[in-house]
Amino acid sequence: MEKMKRAERMVAITQLLMQKPNVLTPLTLFAERFGTAKSTISEDLMAVKGSLMLSGQGHLETISGAAGGVRYIPEIAKEEATEFLSELSERLSDKERILAGGFLYMTDLLFDPSVLRPLGLIFAGAFREKKPDVVVTIETKGIPLALVTAEALGLPMVVIRSGNKVTEGSSVSINYVSGSSRRIQTMSLSRRALEPKQRVLIIDDFMKLGGTALGIKNLMAEFEADVVGMGILVEARMTAEPKLVGEYLSLLQLNELDLDTGKTSVIPMISF
Amino acid sequence: MEKMKRAERMVAITQLLMQKPNVLTPLTLFAERFGTAKSTISEDLMAVKGSLMLSGQGHLETISGAAGGVRYIPEIAKEEATEFLSELSERLSDKERILAGGFLYMTDLLFDPSVLRPLGLIFAGAFREKKPDVVVTIETKGIPLALVTAEALGLPMVVIRSGNKVTEGSSVSINYVSGSSRRIQTMSLSRRALEPKQRVLIIDDFMKLGGTALGIKNLMAEFEADVVGMGILVEARMTAEPKLVGEYLSLLQLNELDLDTGKTSVIPMISF
Repeated sequence: MEKMKRAERMVAITQLLMQKPNVLTPLTLFAERFGTAKSTISEDLMAVKGSLMLSGQGHLETISGAAGGVRYIPEIAKEEATEFLSELSERLSDKERILAGGFLYMTDLLFDPSVLRPLGLIFAGAFREKKPDVVVTIETKGIPLALVTAEALGLPMVVIRSGNKVTEGSSVSINYVSGSSRRIQTMSLSRRALEPKQRVLIIDDFMKLGGTALGIKNLMAEFEADVVGMGILVEARMTAEPKLVGEYLSLLQLNELDLDTGKTSVIPMISF
Repeated sequence: MEKMKRAERMVAITQLLMQKPNVLTPLTLFAERFGTAKSTISEDLMAVKGSLMLSGQGHLETISGAAGGVRYIPEIAKEEATEFLSELSERLSDKERILAGGFLYMTDLLFDPSVLRPLGLIFAGAFREKKPDVVVTIETKGIPLALVTAEALGLPMVVIRSGNKVTEGSSVSINYVSGSSRRIQTMSLSRRALEPKQRVLIIDDFMKLGGTALGIKNLMAEFEADVVGMGILVEARMTAEPKLVGEYLSLLQLNELDLDTGKTSVIPMISF
């Protein structure tokens, strides 16, 4: 490859780092790739770091020493996060979203990468300092949300299955009472899916009474896991009953969903 | 914001574009953000474009005119894709992955963002020119794969539910015979999940005889959808019977899985 100018190299370095967020890349890799001295790469990186710092949307983390290198930590700017949650609340407050039975239709948004990406960055920002080892969710609708959070944190994801349909060797199952259906249900996780004593971040799309969340916590206890955080996209505040689980972070709150008047109201729970 | 130097601006532009892949950003947005003339931004973009072109890992697409702008198209370099699929084949050929019943354990990889990201880019590269409107999959294990593909293409994802558990207004259900279980099963999709006459890319993690894939195609016909492509991560070649569906692209092939000898062999199906 022909030798690049500094500005070109800085762009190429930014691209390489952003393509593999959270992955530590040794400086020697860049030096070899661009055919320059390591000291030159160091200077390039300082300049890239400075430029990214101004944006508030992701920064470089450098680790010195023999096993060191540099990695890109993806972030969302505070104003962007606040604005995004406010817009999402408005979209969810559309009365066209009310479904028979008093449910709120969210699936289109939960499966849309352009909505998921900022949500993953918001959850990652909220829980990064808790140093989780793995992001855990339960099928089905929470999976994309958990995946983008896991990706933003550079972690693997583990999906608990509903019912007993695990065909992956021995598994652990527990019964729980879902707040929405008030029926006893089963959730299971393959033994090989989660090593013991992991630090677990639980992510789910919706919480009513917290029965499912409590079930996940109980299942995690069977794996001797340490639940270090729980992030919920929408929590329902329509019930007088207290939630069944303790600490959690919800981004949005469903305050009202009136089948008769067709009125629904979703509001942001946090701002930055 | 203090006025930036060209190199700094180029890094900031790269970051902004890579954070929103496939999204068209008007040049005026950069001009306002960096407090420079549009002509200056044009020059910056030309330089960024040139630098990214050298990498083979994503490029800038510029669209001129009043509704124009620039967007980042994420890609994976050919050598990287070939090497990645070869490594993934090796990981899947580990005899520890053989499960009772003759299944191959892939869940850990299917839920790992560092594995999924390159797979999404490979599928996106293979199907981008078919111009799909939406990526469709069936729950559960195919969801992360479909999501990363959708994200790499800048499209929404639609998830077909197993059974009849759709609680999202009226839905369309069909029966199908899964190749693995040889039993009649049901899959359903909410009517509001997919507009009629969409161009659909089907993505799934595994294909044995193709019964599920055929079911998805039949369900898509109910939505008057045009299936423009089908991407499968692993297809099984252990059966003498021909597949039930016609054209599809599989990235890997499971050639052998011997419960007695503990031997399993997965090989890449394409190289770049």
